[in-house]
Order: sequence, then C-alpha cells, then structure tokens
Amino acid sequence: MKFCSACGQSVAQKVPAGDNRPRYCCDSCGAIHYENPRLVVGTVPVLGRQVLLCKRAIEPRYGYWTLPAGFMENGEAVSEGAARETLEEAGAVVDIGALFSVLDVPHVHQVHVFYLAQMRSADLDPGEETLEARLFDEADIPWDELSFATVKTTLRWFFEDRAAGRLPEPAAAGQAPSGFSPHQKAMLPPQRR
Amino acid sequence: MKFCSACGQSVAQKVPAGDNRPRYCCDSCGAIHYENPRLVVGTVPVLGRQVLLCKRAIEPRYGYWTLPAGFMENGEAVSEGAARETLEEAGAVVDIGALFSVLDVPHVHQVHVFYLAQMRSADLDPGEETLEARLFDEADIPWDELSFATVKTTLRWFFEDRAAGRLPEPAAAGQAPSGFSPHQKAMLPPQRR
Repeated sequence: MKFCSACGQSVAQKVPAGDNRPRYCCDSCGAIHYENPRLVVGTVPVLGRQVLLCKRAIEPRYGYWTLPAGFMENGEAVSEGAARETLEEAGAVVDIGALFSVLDVPHVHQVHVFYLAQMRSADLDPGEETLEARLFDEADIPWDELSFATVKTTLRWFFEDRAAGRLPEPAAAGQAPSGFSPHQKAMLPPQRR
Repeated sequence: MKFCSACGQSVAQKVPAGDNRPRYCCDSCGAIHYENPRLVVGTVPVLGRQVLLCKRAIEPRYGYWTLPAGFMENGEAVSEGAARETLEEAGAVVDIGALFSVLDVPHVHQVHVFYLAQMRSADLDPGEETLEARLFDEADIPWDELSFATVKTTLRWFFEDRAAGRLPEPAAAGQAPSGFSPHQKAMLPPQRR
C-alpha cells in the first residue's frame, strides 16, 4: 500500500495513538488503513461414499485438485459463502452440514474454513476456475496432486473420522447437524437506536 | 474507496473479467481492490462459576459490557487473536478451550468467533479500551447493558449449555478440548517449490 484510498495522498507505516502495531496511515486526511486476515470458505462435498474435488484452472496451483473453496464475500454468511463457492466452482448444489475444519494460514493472512456438505445429486457444471470436477472414492484421491495443505489436512481428517465412525450425521431438514459443531447464527441488522 | 492504494489514481466500481460482482478497479495500473469480511475474535473467559466482562471505553457502544474481542490481526491464528484480545482488553491470561460460537454479521461485513477460555487467575489489568473488567455470576450479568447482539447470544448459549451440562470439559494440558469443536490447526509456511 502506497497511497490513501480515501484521498489519494501518500501513506506511511506508523503506530497510531492507542494502538500497538504499525498501520498504513495518511497524514493528509488522517485515515488509518487496517489490514486483516481473509476467510477462505469451502466444503467437503459428499455423495454416498464419494467426495467431490475440482481441478484448478487458475493460479496458484493450476492443474492441482482442490476442495471447492474461495474468498468469503461481503454480505454473506460463512456457510452461504461455502455453498456459493461449491456451486460456482463445481456446479454442485449442496446442503451444508457441520463446520468441520478451521485452519490458520498466518503466513498468507488467511483462515480456511470447511463445512461438511451433502450433494443433492451427481450433477456437475464446472465454472471458469475449474478444469474438471469429479467424484472420488477414497482409494482414488490424488494425494500427491492436491492444491493446498489445508485441503490435504481436511481430507485426511474426513477419512479418518469416517473410518472411526466419528462423522456427524447429515442434519434433517431445518435441524442443526449432530456432532462437533460450535453454535452458529447469522445476525440480522439491529434496529436503529 | 476513491483512489488506488497501489498507484494513487482514481478507481471505479466494475465487474472484472471472469468475476461476477463489482470491485474497485484501477484503470491506470490494473489493480483490483477486493473487500472481504473481517474476523472479530474473542473469548468467554471463565473462572470457576464466573464469567469475565469488560466495560467498553471506546465507541461504538461506549460504557456497555462486552466479552473481550477484537479484530484478528495478520500473522496470528484465530485462537491466538482471541487470547491476545483477552489479554489486551482485560489483562486476563487464559487457556483457550473449545471453539464455541461463529456468528455472521453480514450487514457490517464481519464474522464474530468466540472460544471458551479458562482464566489462570482472577488477576485483571484493563487496557485502554476498557473502563472496567469484572467477573460476574450468572445472576448478575447486565443483560440490558451488553454491547452487541453477538455477545448477548454467545452468553445466552453459554449459560444454557452450562445449565444443561453440555459444556465441553476444559482440556488437559496439550490436549484438544472435548465436545463440540471442529478440527483446528495452524499451518506452517510451505517449503519453496
């Protein structure tokens, strides 16, 4: 960051009053530009005994297999973002289940979050960011061609939990999934005070 | 956003090629400035049967009581941020427990995440953002003077779960907490490929 996005003048890094770490500050208009981690939200889409993976059509990791996931957008809930990315990247319609993994990736200022998800059908329609979307049996997972460590770790946990009978049951319509999920809620805007 | 933070020229909202929603784009240098939700991370700090709340010394909601929480910073894990905020706002040293609540606040582009946390002692040392930090019995929680809906909801879930015997046990040293927590891991930087 070199320029203030509010007024266009130069910014410099310094510690604002009352703060304890350097921020990009604008001497001209006084704006402080905070930089914070971004959420990458995705799913482990399951149909029967198979898991859906997408072959990436974009960098980084072009040509490697991934779970459908992408940056959470303003205005949506975490689980909505996960379902949206699954639809955009694979054309798969899913019902969101338990919050399954939360992976800190501090060196790139990201947090990756994956939900278990039930696919409604085997219908797929890969988007522009995907070369190919495919259902895999556990024995066929391309472990050496996975895109990111968070994807590999999440898939490993999934198959370990499934083998041990620890996966939460898919939720009945309108009910919370069983098993290891924290409380979750989408808040509505407050009435004006 | 009015100006490009990379080159200082004017930006305009438009849908970039291959995208499906408007972003701030710079015609001059080609930069695309994405805006994404921010994580607010905090704890439910517990000592015996009491819960720690902080009276806010900053806007918004000056003078209202809150659970210690704040914006996650680059370079830290979610749980590290939650412990840091608890230390900064209340001077309380905690051991982080189960991931307890994930609350979407889409109208302000935030996700609030609270961990259960065990206080190591009753020692408190409120920081600049806190007028007062205090331990409360359930009967004394100032429900009508709480800062945010996410704080109220998280506290309500906490006392409901405690009354029903559903709270996960505090973890033994070095072990994961029992109960409803998704898998969590902090990833290390990859070796250069």
